[in-house]
Amino acid sequence: MKRAAKTPLFRRAAIIGLGLIGSSLARALRRARVARTIVACDTSAAVRAKAKQLRLADSIVADPGTAATGADLVAICTPISSYAALAAAVGPKLAKGAILTDVGSVKRAAIRDLAPHLRKGAHLVPGHPIAGTENSGPEAGFAALFDQRWCILTPPAGAKPAAVGRVAEMWGRLGMKVATMDAEHHDRVLAITSHVPHLIAYTIVNTVADLESHLKGEVVKYAASGFRDFTRVAASDPVMWRDIFLENRDAVLEMLGRLYEDIALLQKAIRLGDGETLHRVFSRSRQIRRGVVQAKQD
Amino acid sequence: MKRAAKTPLFRRAAIIGLGLIGSSLARALRRARVARTIVACDTSAAVRAKAKQLRLADSIVADPGTAATGADLVAICTPISSYAALAAAVGPKLAKGAILTDVGSVKRAAIRDLAPHLRKGAHLVPGHPIAGTENSGPEAGFAALFDQRWCILTPPAGAKPAAVGRVAEMWGRLGMKVATMDAEHHDRVLAITSHVPHLIAYTIVNTVADLESHLKGEVVKYAASGFRDFTRVAASDPVMWRDIFLENRDAVLEMLGRLYEDIALLQKAIRLGDGETLHRVFSRSRQIRRGVVQAKQD
Repeated sequence: MKRAAKTPLFRRAAIIGLGLIGSSLARALRRARVARTIVACDTSAAVRAKAKQLRLADSIVADPGTAATGADLVAICTPISSYAALAAAVGPKLAKGAILTDVGSVKRAAIRDLAPHLRKGAHLVPGHPIAGTENSGPEAGFAALFDQRWCILTPPAGAKPAAVGRVAEMWGRLGMKVATMDAEHHDRVLAITSHVPHLIAYTIVNTVADLESHLKGEVVKYAASGFRDFTRVAASDPVMWRDIFLENRDAVLEMLGRLYEDIALLQKAIRLGDGETLHRVFSRSRQIRRGVVQAKQD
Repeated sequence: MKRAAKTPLFRRAAIIGLGLIGSSLARALRRARVARTIVACDTSAAVRAKAKQLRLADSIVADPGTAATGADLVAICTPISSYAALAAAVGPKLAKGAILTDVGSVKRAAIRDLAPHLRKGAHLVPGHPIAGTENSGPEAGFAALFDQRWCILTPPAGAKPAAVGRVAEMWGRLGMKVATMDAEHHDRVLAITSHVPHLIAYTIVNTVADLESHLKGEVVKYAASGFRDFTRVAASDPVMWRDIFLENRDAVLEMLGRLYEDIALLQKAIRLGDGETLHRVFSRSRQIRRGVVQAKQD
């Protein structure tokens, strides 16, 4: 691929927040030469020091407004609870024609908190790259994180197609497949694919934490079958996930309600010794798994 | 490692059932030269044909009694619901001093179904190698499946230490770490490390299967974050898992009850917007994950 031959999409990209996703974005933008200059911002001095050491950006600053000044792309990569304050700091500094985007997992909340602060002539194109690991922080990021994964854009009503197209091209150049949908639909899809599974993983790991201590030690020791996959999911950043559940409350509670009904069905089958129901349900799961494998999401 | 220099532990090992575990055991026994001769048995003609093609054993037969005749080790590697009938076929054929073992995930049921048919002078040493993948069948097995994983032996009261020692040495030579505990304790530990996680994974995948079809397609497409790990777990063999839930009913229902309480706690926190509780619970999960990583079970 002659990535280097392509014209950079942005003159100056500002990345606010240097966790797993922000630091991966900095690395990927540089690798694919998508932005001429990258300025990174984090309010934590420790994170800034680490980012400097890793040479993640051309300049690294503490103030979001400073980072945004003169940028034609500003990407917010922080937990959702910080969005409103960040937008207030960044919004007035946006140049005419600049694009404000984000990477958060709940898109209605992103639009609610970012849109009001947008300077006239600037463009809001919220996005969600569906990629991650259970690790956090600037040292956990890597440029290949986005390869072959999906990125969902949720442009609000009236968004300029040219601005949406530039953000789509950015993620495409970073290796992602890009889809567009409305924010509410995104939040329902993610509630069941991601948010409820994480909630259950967190729960099951905590149930183990409450076991009698002799049992708990053995659970950790013999985690190889099933439980360890849950602990991996449940190791993700606590602040990010707190915000996701607070902001996607309705969709999460609805999907959790559906899940309850289905657990109750299996619970009853176990209690009654109804092997036929268990076998039917388990066989059906296998079919879904095949769909995921065919969609190359395994 | 000079494995080849060691004396084979068994003259003739019979493996009953050539699924993922049985076919892996056949491969691993041969690789480590743990048995001079390996005879394999499966009631399915298709599985036997595949096993012959893969040259999984020195001879491959349809009848369990024939396989067990003259063997000094018989390893049952079939779903638990087949144990009682298999034990009745195999038990009378066991030579004096022969060892009968198994690889099933519920050990009280294994002892209940295998012990009554044991010939006097033969030894029952139930075992559970905690290793597996989501794939099934003789072509899914591989010799390295057991490397560095735990195997739990649950010898019944009065078991001969020499017989237990030989089974422990067998799994040790195949690369496993071996522990011994009583069957009831094993079944409680596995209920929470493995059985309940699988039950939840099966449930969540089925909840998705019931979604409105436009939503379902997108869930499969965007499975990358969380959901795909659940589909992997939920792709395991339906018959094996049906039997596990039927046979470990009490421990599974008890652990599921504990899990319910913990889900309810998080559900309430989400509904009330109680970010502090969410953050506390999620942070605690991370600690448990660190324990699993330190125990090298990731």
